[in-house]
Amino acid sequence: MTYRIAVLPGDGIGAEIVPQAIRVLEAIGAKYGLSFTFTEGLIGGIAIDKTGQPLPAETLELCRNSDAILLGAIGGPKWDDLPTHLRPEVGALLPLRKELGLYANIRPCHTYDALADASTLKKEVLAGTDMVIIRELTGGLYFGSKGREDIDGVQKAWDTMLYSTPEIERIVRLAFETAGHRRKKLCSVDKANVLESSRLWRETVNRLAPEYPDIAVTHMYVDNAAMQFIRNPGQFDVVVTENTFGDILSDQASMLSASLGMLASASLGGHVGLYEPAHGSAPDIAGQKKANPIATILSAAMMLEYSFNRVAEARAIEAAIEAVLAKGFRTGDIMEAGKTLVNTEEMTDRVLEEL
Amino acid sequence: MTYRIAVLPGDGIGAEIVPQAIRVLEAIGAKYGLSFTFTEGLIGGIAIDKTGQPLPAETLELCRNSDAILLGAIGGPKWDDLPTHLRPEVGALLPLRKELGLYANIRPCHTYDALADASTLKKEVLAGTDMVIIRELTGGLYFGSKGREDIDGVQKAWDTMLYSTPEIERIVRLAFETAGHRRKKLCSVDKANVLESSRLWRETVNRLAPEYPDIAVTHMYVDNAAMQFIRNPGQFDVVVTENTFGDILSDQASMLSASLGMLASASLGGHVGLYEPAHGSAPDIAGQKKANPIATILSAAMMLEYSFNRVAEARAIEAAIEAVLAKGFRTGDIMEAGKTLVNTEEMTDRVLEEL
Ligand SMILES: CC(C)[C@H](C(=O)O)[C@@H](O)C(=O)O
Ligand SMILES: CC(C)[C@H](C(=O)O)[C@@H](O)C(=O)O
Repeated sequence: MTYRIAVLPGDGIGAEIVPQAIRVLEAIGAKYGLSFTFTEGLIGGIAIDKTGQPLPAETLELCRNSDAILLGAIGGPKWDDLPTHLRPEVGALLPLRKELGLYANIRPCHTYDALADASTLKKEVLAGTDMVIIRELTGGLYFGSKGREDIDGVQKAWDTMLYSTPEIERIVRLAFETAGHRRKKLCSVDKANVLESSRLWRETVNRLAPEYPDIAVTHMYVDNAAMQFIRNPGQFDVVVTENTFGDILSDQASMLSASLGMLASASLGGHVGLYEPAHGSAPDIAGQKKANPIATILSAAMMLEYSFNRVAEARAIEAAIEAVLAKGFRTGDIMEAGKTLVNTEEMTDRVLEEL
Repeated sequence: MTYRIAVLPGDGIGAEIVPQAIRVLEAIGAKYGLSFTFTEGLIGGIAIDKTGQPLPAETLELCRNSDAILLGAIGGPKWDDLPTHLRPEVGALLPLRKELGLYANIRPCHTYDALADASTLKKEVLAGTDMVIIRELTGGLYFGSKGREDIDGVQKAWDTMLYSTPEIERIVRLAFETAGHRRKKLCSVDKANVLESSRLWRETVNRLAPEYPDIAVTHMYVDNAAMQFIRNPGQFDVVVTENTFGDILSDQASMLSASLGMLASASLGGHVGLYEPAHGSAPDIAGQKKANPIATILSAAMMLEYSFNRVAEARAIEAAIEAVLAKGFRTGDIMEAGKTLVNTEEMTDRVLEEL
């Protein structure tokens, strides 16, 4: 079995971290008898520079013809003055999600014993935090109708938070199933006291709940969720929410971990999944071999699990990373006194040794 | 000069904390030569029980004929099974805001030296945090058109995030002015990379900025703001944002303080301002004299400052509270080993002694 991976390094540190994840995938392949083909495509700022487009048609075609996509990072100061819809992030990510039907963004967020002191939250507050945020990714305010009107010099602008039952059902089912493989708790986050779309969301969750009798379902208002993530993050197992709320909450939750450099993500839905670190292109450290490759390596682990159902292989990568951290190896973003500073490649070397 | 205050204790601990703020206002009045009349009105669950309405017309009338409103808290489990639009919070707060034109919600959030250890964030992260969140309160998804449609068994539901230039201008001007009285930094939070309403918001901020040349303006995406509030809250002075983002961010920011029991708020816009603690009705401790009255007392201080321009009087109340905390008096929500536990009235007694 050969898996075809579309490789989109993108901008900034993307070109440094993506090759590290490929090294790990190749090692896993050698050990477990899987083979991969890696085909590179252009995306983001570098694609604008070379083709004039943040998401060239060729790249989209490559993605469609692959079994999974490994993405680095997108954007940088060089392209920040472009009009928004041509900017690398929006111009590439939103159409990619829509075209490939990637309606579910999955972000695991847990603490590492070895890095317990690295968050801005107190260690005892974070103890036991282990949640997955499932964000709807192709609906809501992002893709609802939007517009502007000028009446006698008064401008009006609007966006529409629109959801239909099939859109809600598919993401909520995925969340129930994810909870079924975990601690069997699902918290659906909405603003049903104010929003009609949230009321439909909540009704849909409640309608599906009897089909998953072993899952304990709760509902939480988004404002309260933003408090509870800081007050007592250990209470959450799987969290499911709509696109905009998920954008805010998943970035907030990323602060519960030691570093953005540790956080993986998967975007699922169509026949091909997209895997990328939760962090950005970090132009300030690009080209300096300082970037932490772990988020990208963990994203490759998610690919093995979610796209290829290779769970043992995914667990092996995660265990290798835990072991490397326990031995005290650190990239700059997670460095502490008494630990051993390593660069991007050296961190990967250590992970490969553990495998 | 006699100030007419509409007093709306509401539900749960509301009936315990509001009288404490009145005691403080009376003491301030005696000392500084101001006089107040206090007229009670029904709101929330207790109003539903007595009149069938969460916001009786009589209460709205009382508010219109007052110089300021002091509100306790609204809601409780007794009314949680009512249909949303009849529930105490939504059924009272949203029409009150709309009818009185309270388009600006102001939430100061700063740390107290005496309580530096009480947050779930690390002390060194919180050091120096002192921000004001200004939330637009009568526009956006809350009041834009919303609806539902059923086409062949597929339901669709939507809400509209709508803003016009006059709505944005008035709140943004208030934010610039607030920054002018503080550290002269304004951060406008939006999602202009995705939302048309946010693009109009951002353009409006940029158009007004030259009128306030001494204010340093920055823009931040809401997902990043949710991270930065936890990563480095000390970077913010005044934050201004639209209704839904403000709902989420102001509740998130409340966790930077020692306790919700310390956080005041003001809702401004029309000729009468509304002042209320940021916390809820806390049914679990209602009637037990355990509630922390400080948030409500600080809300009364905001009333003196914002509605009556009595700045010295407001500062006197704030200083009295700092002094009481420094002397080690604590209600249950902020209690620590080695401090003196006091009840709701005793806490107020201590504040009055300091005045
Ligand atoms: C770049 C932006 C459009 C994007 C989003 O809001 O979805 C990003 O914040 C993300 O979360 O992937
Ligand atoms: C009760 C609810 C409608 C309200 C809001 O969302 O505005 C509350 O959360 C608040 O922030 O005052």
